[in-house]
Amino acid sequence: MNPTLIVIACGLVSLLYGAWAIRSVIAAPAGTPRMQEIAGAIQEGASAYLARQYFTIAVVGVLIFALVFWLLGALVAVGFAIGAILSGTAGYIGMLVSVRANVRTAQAASQSLQGGLDIAFKSGAVTGMLVAGLALLGVAVYFFVLTSILGHDPTSRTVVDALVALGFGASLISIFARLGGGIFTKGADVGGDLVGKVEAGIPEDDPRNPATIADNVGDNVGDCAGMAADLFETYAVTVVATMVLAAIYFAGSDHLSATMLYPLAIGGACVLTSIVGTFFVKLGGGTNIMGALYKGFIVTAVLSLIILLPVTYLVFGSFSTTLTAGATAAAEAVTTAAGTDGAAAVADAVAQTGTAAGITFTPFDLYLCGVAGLVITGLIVWITEYYTGVGFRPVRSISQASVTGHGTNVIQGLAVSLEATALPALVIIAGIIFTYSFAGLYGIAIAVTTMLALAGMVVALDAFGPVTDNAGGIAEMADLPEDVRSTTDALDAVGNTTKAVTKGYAIGSAGLGALVLFAAYTEDLKYFIAHSDQYPFFQGVTSETLNFSLANPYVVVGLFFGGLLPFLFGGVAMTAVGRAAGSVVEEVRRQFREKPGIMEGKDRPDYGRAVDMLTKAAIREMILPSLLPVLSPIVVFFLINAIAGKGEAFAATGAMLLGVIVTGLFVAISMTAGGGAWDNAKKSFEDGFVDRDGVKHLKGSEAHKASVTGDTVGDPYKDTAGPAVNPMIKITNIVALLLLAVLAHQGV
Amino acid sequence: MNPTLIVIACGLVSLLYGAWAIRSVIAAPAGTPRMQEIAGAIQEGASAYLARQYFTIAVVGVLIFALVFWLLGALVAVGFAIGAILSGTAGYIGMLVSVRANVRTAQAASQSLQGGLDIAFKSGAVTGMLVAGLALLGVAVYFFVLTSILGHDPTSRTVVDALVALGFGASLISIFARLGGGIFTKGADVGGDLVGKVEAGIPEDDPRNPATIADNVGDNVGDCAGMAADLFETYAVTVVATMVLAAIYFAGSDHLSATMLYPLAIGGACVLTSIVGTFFVKLGGGTNIMGALYKGFIVTAVLSLIILLPVTYLVFGSFSTTLTAGATAAAEAVTTAAGTDGAAAVADAVAQTGTAAGITFTPFDLYLCGVAGLVITGLIVWITEYYTGVGFRPVRSISQASVTGHGTNVIQGLAVSLEATALPALVIIAGIIFTYSFAGLYGIAIAVTTMLALAGMVVALDAFGPVTDNAGGIAEMADLPEDVRSTTDALDAVGNTTKAVTKGYAIGSAGLGALVLFAAYTEDLKYFIAHSDQYPFFQGVTSETLNFSLANPYVVVGLFFGGLLPFLFGGVAMTAVGRAAGSVVEEVRRQFREKPGIMEGKDRPDYGRAVDMLTKAAIREMILPSLLPVLSPIVVFFLINAIAGKGEAFAATGAMLLGVIVTGLFVAISMTAGGGAWDNAKKSFEDGFVDRDGVKHLKGSEAHKASVTGDTVGDPYKDTAGPAVNPMIKITNIVALLLLAVLAHQGV
Repeated sequence: MNPTLIVIACGLVSLLYGAWAIRSVIAAPAGTPRMQEIAGAIQEGASAYLARQYFTIAVVGVLIFALVFWLLGALVAVGFAIGAILSGTAGYIGMLVSVRANVRTAQAASQSLQGGLDIAFKSGAVTGMLVAGLALLGVAVYFFVLTSILGHDPTSRTVVDALVALGFGASLISIFARLGGGIFTKGADVGGDLVGKVEAGIPEDDPRNPATIADNVGDNVGDCAGMAADLFETYAVTVVATMVLAAIYFAGSDHLSATMLYPLAIGGACVLTSIVGTFFVKLGGGTNIMGALYKGFIVTAVLSLIILLPVTYLVFGSFSTTLTAGATAAAEAVTTAAGTDGAAAVADAVAQTGTAAGITFTPFDLYLCGVAGLVITGLIVWITEYYTGVGFRPVRSISQASVTGHGTNVIQGLAVSLEATALPALVIIAGIIFTYSFAGLYGIAIAVTTMLALAGMVVALDAFGPVTDNAGGIAEMADLPEDVRSTTDALDAVGNTTKAVTKGYAIGSAGLGALVLFAAYTEDLKYFIAHSDQYPFFQGVTSETLNFSLANPYVVVGLFFGGLLPFLFGGVAMTAVGRAAGSVVEEVRRQFREKPGIMEGKDRPDYGRAVDMLTKAAIREMILPSLLPVLSPIVVFFLINAIAGKGEAFAATGAMLLGVIVTGLFVAISMTAGGGAWDNAKKSFEDGFVDRDGVKHLKGSEAHKASVTGDTVGDPYKDTAGPAVNPMIKITNIVALLLLAVLAHQGV
Repeated sequence: MNPTLIVIACGLVSLLYGAWAIRSVIAAPAGTPRMQEIAGAIQEGASAYLARQYFTIAVVGVLIFALVFWLLGALVAVGFAIGAILSGTAGYIGMLVSVRANVRTAQAASQSLQGGLDIAFKSGAVTGMLVAGLALLGVAVYFFVLTSILGHDPTSRTVVDALVALGFGASLISIFARLGGGIFTKGADVGGDLVGKVEAGIPEDDPRNPATIADNVGDNVGDCAGMAADLFETYAVTVVATMVLAAIYFAGSDHLSATMLYPLAIGGACVLTSIVGTFFVKLGGGTNIMGALYKGFIVTAVLSLIILLPVTYLVFGSFSTTLTAGATAAAEAVTTAAGTDGAAAVADAVAQTGTAAGITFTPFDLYLCGVAGLVITGLIVWITEYYTGVGFRPVRSISQASVTGHGTNVIQGLAVSLEATALPALVIIAGIIFTYSFAGLYGIAIAVTTMLALAGMVVALDAFGPVTDNAGGIAEMADLPEDVRSTTDALDAVGNTTKAVTKGYAIGSAGLGALVLFAAYTEDLKYFIAHSDQYPFFQGVTSETLNFSLANPYVVVGLFFGGLLPFLFGGVAMTAVGRAAGSVVEEVRRQFREKPGIMEGKDRPDYGRAVDMLTKAAIREMILPSLLPVLSPIVVFFLINAIAGKGEAFAATGAMLLGVIVTGLFVAISMTAGGGAWDNAKKSFEDGFVDRDGVKHLKGSEAHKASVTGDTVGDPYKDTAGPAVNPMIKITNIVALLLLAVLAHQGV
């Protein structure tokens, strides 16, 4: 039997799990009529959001589909469609379940903590397993269809381009969900607070505020649909890039099919361990919710560690076979060169095949790379918890700084956000060195693949957050008893930490995944250059004109240009939140003015209109920033091409990709960690924060107010700009890959 | 006559100008006894600061001197001493003049605006001309001594190492002045405000606050001594790196002496044009202070543009001679290789000599590169003014966001700070492409040299700021009439803009200067490798093991490692300000407790103790962050050497240098531009800010309070962390250069 079919079966198991979990969530009691009324409004809002968002995506998607079809052909365009549709489906179903689980969680929380935890986590797990399952299925099925049914060679450009386009389809959804969604959620949050708390003097989650429902919808938009699309993209793109690297490195080798299968096999195995892990999310006797969630996570990680050993053996048929990456390509290039123009050409060929040539390793080395991926995940989770958790120095230092005012709170928060980048970066650096020394670039790719294979579990932890957040809001609005609210609060507090932790994971994996994409870019380029007889555009590009060395100023130019993108993008995204919030303020003011009965509780606000208007504003605001990563590789390439020729243009574009990763990683980590720390510093005042001088500061104190300022600043940091940097990094990379494909295809 | 002597004469002219300007400042009337009393306290505080700071520097300096002597010999150690002593002297004299000019400015301002402007600017010009003059003299005289008197070959390692060590000496002062000084100034500012305004309820600049004098001293510490040391370092380091590049590229060529002289000649010529420019800082009939300052700046720039034409002709004897960079070295390496091991070695040699080989250009091309440097300077000034000036969109958007609260003010400020990085980066990118296409890496170096040749004028503009700031404080404390205060306020407002603009210039030039240093690193490395018979440590490093390509994971590791440094450094520096401010709070509380008469105005606070205590705190706080740039290159080199061998270690270290520049440039620009924008957004409320809805917000309004929060956040951003990133970038680079020298010297 074709082993890809086993992988496909694993993917189908995750869909079955999803179907089962959806049924069991929906079967739970949905609470009082008042609760259902509120939940109904949130569901209505979510549908309004999804309808407009997906309509826009559909329009843009059809245009891109047509463009890809025209430039690269039908099979590639279909790949694009598969990626977009599956990622969209995961987010869509996840959202629909999430806005139905919230009220059921509130209801269950009125019975027991375990009950609330069960429903909320199961709802998150639906999204998680759909993400991992559909991403895996998308890649595996299409690869199977292309190679085993349509009979294309696995290393052919058609297959490579179609898979890359699949990643690009996922990217389309991801930028909409992360950037548009991020602007939506924080626009609703900030705008709703401004006009509700500040102007009208009504509390958060007050049903009289027309923006309240938008705020609740926004929680799901960000941490359910947003995270789903983000990790779907990273997952798909990383698996694809790993397969592309395998196709290039092992072309003509006996191990080609095994090395191309291996990332899919890892994905299949870890989907199963993720499903098993979900059943270990149990409180046991105590009330340690975080402990229960980590139990599930650790079970998944340990089981993966174990199961990958036999998987590796089965895929390669041995632990000690010698795999040689790039040997064929290198030998071929050098031989060709030697046959033609003598020493200079040999030098060219050697330089072009570069470090990939002739690295050897065993399947067991690859297994160790996978283990490294799991260790990196664990360390990043641990570091993020340190920087954003209430009990540790960073958050305490922000709480302490709040005592002396708004300004010092923000200063300390910024200090923490900057500092928080160092350890994750060191972990990533260590991971690169370790895995590279074991199995070269392919080893790095396997480590990232393994890291991402846990995406099902990780997304479950993240998508758990908005359900509990909503449940708290519903309990508040439906005037449920105080103890229900405190149960949902306990769940929600944990949700804040899991949201921060999973964002750290998402960014870390995106950073490493982008490196794999960058490797795919350079290897692709080498391939086209080595076969420039078939790809006339690449004729004349030699190692003298294509020079990725840092000593080449065009490389430096590329690094700077790439480096500026996350900063500019972050700045524009933060401004967009401000403007979207402004439009919420206008809308709410208008509703208050036109329906004076709202404030008296007599008239029902028009929640749907607020949601729809904000969705429109968010989509309008995302146009400019989302064009940045799409256009930058194209502009840089053609600009430098005009100035200095093709070779330097390829070098500058490649360097740009790395520039985006280098600054993007730091910008994104600093924003998400800083935002999480500010958030929890604010929370530390809810139970009363005891400062250095022994004074206790409670909710409502001046120190608490200062901490609220920090939290407000952290919101667009951690929920809009920071997470949106992820898809931005990857889109820049994948557009560059597609650009190569288009140039190769045109034969200009 | 040796043309270096003409350059030395130009340097001496700037010292003469300095002496004349000092005399004329000191000769001005020093105001009432009360004013002199206050100024006396500031002078006392400045002396206390300088005494402790320079004592610490002396101790550290002697240790490093001994180390350099031991590792690299006497001449190199003397170079280090020259750099440190001259930079220290410029800052020391500048500070002493500045704290005497402040009271005289206040006195002159009571007569006329032009009078106040005259003294304040002249005081700034003293620092400026000392910086440019002493930096030029240091390099030129020592070069003359080494080559013409001691008879060393200009391209010999002794001369190169001695000049690099001179840059390192300047770096020592620079990190103390920028980082220690930055922590001092903002510790005094934030701490003084916290304990004075917030706790004791007394206004800023109230003589009862023991931290008031420290605050006034701090202004000079940051913008006079700090900027002086920073630009002294950038100036010296850039001129040295340019000369080193010339020595490598033109070794054995007829044009060696001309290309090594050219940067010095540019420096000499522009010192003269800067001096001429100072005489054009006149109000004319109006009251446009900024216009008057820009008049001086523009005269300097235009005169430089003109005078560089004949200077270029005189240095090279023609505009159209063909200069070929690196031809000899390349040819030599290839010939040697061909003579030994055949094709592979030729490939090695070709790869190693790389892009530098055989680039040809004319002296007129170099002149155009110089013009590009001036244009870059102009554009950066213009962009910085746009992002930090009161009349433009960015600052207005922050003012507008203040209307909705502290949080939105900070969000918008951060958005502006992120966005503000894009245009300067694009200007730098364009500058690199333009100058490289005209004259290769040497062309880039000449552009930066020309940019920095204006340092005298630029430092004058910056050091003008603290004088007017202090003058305002003195006017306040001495109860001078309202109209004097409004004159000093007008001068001070301009000072804020010039401070922001000159910081943009300092960072832009530091970023480009660091590129030149990076080029020096790679060229040095190539040199050692090509002559590994003399430098046994470099034996066995070939193009296969030394691979600067982005496809090499150790290069990526280096980029990430370098990239994290500015973030970590910035975070630690921000935290340090918080802690230093805390120690000010303790000290002031103690004085209030022990001398209750202070608050009643009966007892004199112990200003000196507050200054001394804060100086100690600042020095303690700077230890950890200042070790980062010093140790990082060493740690990275030996770590990667242990893991992957020498070649990869050199590659990773080199990549680290570029990583620091790439993220450092963005971090520094975002911090200084953001801080300036926050500052001016606060100022916009002083005349009343009219928001989008037509409501006017005055000083004391809620919106104004929100803008004060942003300003507080911006303070350590723009005055501590941001500017300190400059020396950090350069120290990392220069330590790496010294590391190469040490490795070459040890012959291990």
